[in-house]
Amino acid sequence: MAATSTATPGRLATVYSEVQTSRLDHSLPLPSVLKSSFQIVDGPASSAAGNPDEIAKLFPCLFGQPSAMLVPNQTSLPEKKLKIGVVLSGGQAPGGHNVICGIFDYLQDRAKGSTLYGFKGGPAGIMKCKYVELTPEFIYPYRNQGGFDMICSGRDKIETPEQFKQAEETVVKLDLDGLVVIGGDDSNTNACLLAENFRQKKLKARVIGCPKTIDGDLKSKEVPTSFGFDTACKFGSAELAECSGLKSELNHPSKILMVLPIYAEMIGNVMTDARSTGKYYHFVRLMGRAASHITLECALQTHPNITIIGEEVAAKKQTLKNVTDYITDIICKRAELGYNYGVILIPEGLIDFIPEVQQLIAELNEILAHDVVDEAGLWKKKLQQQSQQLFDFLPNAIQEQLMLERDPHGNVQVAKIETEKMLISMVETELEKRKQEGKYKGQFKGQSHFFGYEGRCGLPTNFDATYCYALGYGAGSLLHSGKTGLISSVRALVGNLGAPVEQWTVGGTALTSLMDVERRHGKFKPVIKKAMVELEGAPFKKFASLRDEWALKNRYISPGPIQFYGPGSNDINHTLLLELGVES
Amino acid sequence: MAATSTATPGRLATVYSEVQTSRLDHSLPLPSVLKSSFQIVDGPASSAAGNPDEIAKLFPCLFGQPSAMLVPNQTSLPEKKLKIGVVLSGGQAPGGHNVICGIFDYLQDRAKGSTLYGFKGGPAGIMKCKYVELTPEFIYPYRNQGGFDMICSGRDKIETPEQFKQAEETVVKLDLDGLVVIGGDDSNTNACLLAENFRQKKLKARVIGCPKTIDGDLKSKEVPTSFGFDTACKFGSAELAECSGLKSELNHPSKILMVLPIYAEMIGNVMTDARSTGKYYHFVRLMGRAASHITLECALQTHPNITIIGEEVAAKKQTLKNVTDYITDIICKRAELGYNYGVILIPEGLIDFIPEVQQLIAELNEILAHDVVDEAGLWKKKLQQQSQQLFDFLPNAIQEQLMLERDPHGNVQVAKIETEKMLISMVETELEKRKQEGKYKGQFKGQSHFFGYEGRCGLPTNFDATYCYALGYGAGSLLHSGKTGLISSVRALVGNLGAPVEQWTVGGTALTSLMDVERRHGKFKPVIKKAMVELEGAPFKKFASLRDEWALKNRYISPGPIQFYGPGSNDINHTLLLELGVES
Repeated sequence: MAATSTATPGRLATVYSEVQTSRLDHSLPLPSVLKSSFQIVDGPASSAAGNPDEIAKLFPCLFGQPSAMLVPNQTSLPEKKLKIGVVLSGGQAPGGHNVICGIFDYLQDRAKGSTLYGFKGGPAGIMKCKYVELTPEFIYPYRNQGGFDMICSGRDKIETPEQFKQAEETVVKLDLDGLVVIGGDDSNTNACLLAENFRQKKLKARVIGCPKTIDGDLKSKEVPTSFGFDTACKFGSAELAECSGLKSELNHPSKILMVLPIYAEMIGNVMTDARSTGKYYHFVRLMGRAASHITLECALQTHPNITIIGEEVAAKKQTLKNVTDYITDIICKRAELGYNYGVILIPEGLIDFIPEVQQLIAELNEILAHDVVDEAGLWKKKLQQQSQQLFDFLPNAIQEQLMLERDPHGNVQVAKIETEKMLISMVETELEKRKQEGKYKGQFKGQSHFFGYEGRCGLPTNFDATYCYALGYGAGSLLHSGKTGLISSVRALVGNLGAPVEQWTVGGTALTSLMDVERRHGKFKPVIKKAMVELEGAPFKKFASLRDEWALKNRYISPGPIQFYGPGSNDINHTLLLELGVES
Repeated sequence: MAATSTATPGRLATVYSEVQTSRLDHSLPLPSVLKSSFQIVDGPASSAAGNPDEIAKLFPCLFGQPSAMLVPNQTSLPEKKLKIGVVLSGGQAPGGHNVICGIFDYLQDRAKGSTLYGFKGGPAGIMKCKYVELTPEFIYPYRNQGGFDMICSGRDKIETPEQFKQAEETVVKLDLDGLVVIGGDDSNTNACLLAENFRQKKLKARVIGCPKTIDGDLKSKEVPTSFGFDTACKFGSAELAECSGLKSELNHPSKILMVLPIYAEMIGNVMTDARSTGKYYHFVRLMGRAASHITLECALQTHPNITIIGEEVAAKKQTLKNVTDYITDIICKRAELGYNYGVILIPEGLIDFIPEVQQLIAELNEILAHDVVDEAGLWKKKLQQQSQQLFDFLPNAIQEQLMLERDPHGNVQVAKIETEKMLISMVETELEKRKQEGKYKGQFKGQSHFFGYEGRCGLPTNFDATYCYALGYGAGSLLHSGKTGLISSVRALVGNLGAPVEQWTVGGTALTSLMDVERRHGKFKPVIKKAMVELEGAPFKKFASLRDEWALKNRYISPGPIQFYGPGSNDINHTLLLELGVES
């Protein structure tokens, strides 16, 4: 209500809500290792996630680098005036601004006289040398705020020799000691290539990556997905590894899912609505094309009646009909119990996980490119039998979408298919059939939802704000000590991020150790493998053990709005706690 | 995170999130008049909002009743054991549970030994005598919680002589002293008809209404809109009226908009997203078919670039082309300033406000009922020229929706039209035209959103929880003192609901005083007139004075998530404050 005007260059004349204003001066705890002098301890030589020989060839300077960890020390790192650049890459996630604030504050606290440049609009800002010098006044209005608008982001990649040349020119022109790349798997791969390139060219600029939860490799559409960042680093100091008593945990991928609290709140509200009204099935599509982490975590937080996990659909080679039947079966059983309502979660990428759909789309692309689509439907005969059956099984509206919506290359735009509406329509048809057969006597009304943009620019939770700040502060320390090709890593040896912030560890993992190669256009390309939902992992297993109960009984939980004060204000997500064994 | 199991009959085995749990024991302040002994003071005789002669004929027993106000008194109302029923009617709004808790607590505090029955599933529960006896244990898990699931709601009306007979039988069977109807304009009209009927039949049951923000007269679909409740009551006690010094304010409609905080939060997030990405126009459709209050209040809270208010469109007799051009003009101007992004709010009921669309739909209904729709489109010749032009102006997808989606009576289903997608498509076409003409050089990408079910079942804010609790507690006091045909009214003489809760006044307004008649099927029907956005009212005027600035400059405000503790936790809405003159 009380709105405060902050006159700054970036968010110039921006009026803040009372909640936004209250966040500006929210003080962030730092891990204790960052609160006094520290030194950096290296671990043993690292390898790669796969094909180490190829990775070694691709990164001759950096391959095998140890991971690094900060440990308390009597003497500080030598005072230096550093020139550092920072860039945001890919889709937005709450906390991005705090990573930058963390770097900035590190420099102010530990390397006085340093300069921080923010490259504008993502990696293109590096190539075009478009930047802004970040000052305390410029940064202040973004502290603990959502969005990426401090310096904005972009999806360009630094790929060609010319582009690498431009990046070199920029770091030389600005006399940079280091660069921090905040991004997803692709952006961090790119960061490592830059680090390797600068090292080969004997430039002084180091490169440190910071993990962000947005999947950066989907250029065609703004489709963020959570990305699992594998903090599998082996610490050098034997004592540290020993004292943890949790060696295996150190190899555990931890998925930091930051866009969740708002989705979970909305799902909880829809659940209460469903229960109050008693007559709607809400089909909720959630962001996440490449992996279903968001859907799984939302399920663990809210206990919906039905949740579809793409990775499971793929592993079981399910067809669209299988998925439809699974949903329909539960709706029929619920009707017998007197429930004609429910909540169903669907990952955005569902149809990408279904092989027969992929096959149909490939055939359609071929036919649409070369053949005439006749009104009478003779063209359909060109589809293989299975694809033809699938096409006929699809609702009319989806058939039309498949035929009409094409990208500039003439390809079917899978991303535009509203999966939740498609499933409603297919379930409707199946229920109608069962009604005719006397197997279903309920009433079905579907309501569709897509939760996307509403969530990814929200104010970061206390946890996210603190975690991201530590990531940035840690990245500053890594550059200060001359590290390159590492990704900033914040965890805790015991209890991991569920532990008090003071106990969190700070360090960096060799980016090459996270990499494997993929063969593209006849060449090996380095990639950080996307972490998919693991069907053997604790989060999925917990979900799988409970879903039958959730299906028929109503075990809804309503997480409610993000709280910054009082009860619930310091929650972290279930996936993380389950993976760490903190929760069971 | 920490979830608590509450074993109760209603929310049996429901697991609560930490935030939900923390709300259960949130203590609610009461207006001071409710904290000690009080008496009820009657005002002067009342009239009607229109056609008093007809209202007098329709309500021979109740017409002219004074409004009532609670004033402190030495002696309490006599102790009585009361039997009271309560019913929720129409769509859900945060705070409904608290109204029931308020009634319950009043009875526990002031009329010990009383019984409260909750009629299940709305007015149908009264007719079928389906109820649950409310106990402290039953009620507890719903305190300060969202939804209507304690006793659920329904949209049935008590209309026919048989239905009135059923209601009479129920109140006699349960020996009821009173009934509280929590609902919108239609439900409160119905409450008054019941009160009149019970009085005529000399039954002891009184009826008190409680205002709820959901528009109850849209039976075909769950479309809640805010409803303006006119608290135009004249207090009996001359001193009170005088001491207020704000007589005119007492005639002021105050719109309590409870579903807003979540929408405003989501809009704020979308704004941050738009600004960070820099390449999308977000078209956000908001609930509100009959009136655009929600859209206006969201605009005042968040400062979007473009906001369409249905009442203004109607008053200016704008066409769809006018609305499209208005949006397109601003997009073009913004492109010249370098902004190819923005946020646009649209009320759900927009097309209901456009006369030419209504005309087209009427003609289509006629044609579709009687004529053959030929592929070649010859049927279109039957449309009047203006309608034909409009039809051709509509995007294909919308044309198809108009032709295909029909209700069981064969009528076009206006509610199913996704107005936000329609506008995106029309704006796209217009921009393309201007691009060809060299008048527009920007890039346009539209993203559509509909914020509906996600909001109306959220946890009530501190303000809503307190306000609703006082409404219920007050309703209890009105029944205790034998009042009937009143609507519970909670305000403050100075500063109204912006004043400290202790200063709030509690009373009841004669429902007949809010009524006018409408002629339906040749008969006069009593109606409480829906409060539309008043173009001369302070909220719209403030919006109108600022919208040009918001259009071209980015004055976005991000309200952030609802807070229950700390800064921002006791906000109330702008519309209310502006109407009361508390804010300017």
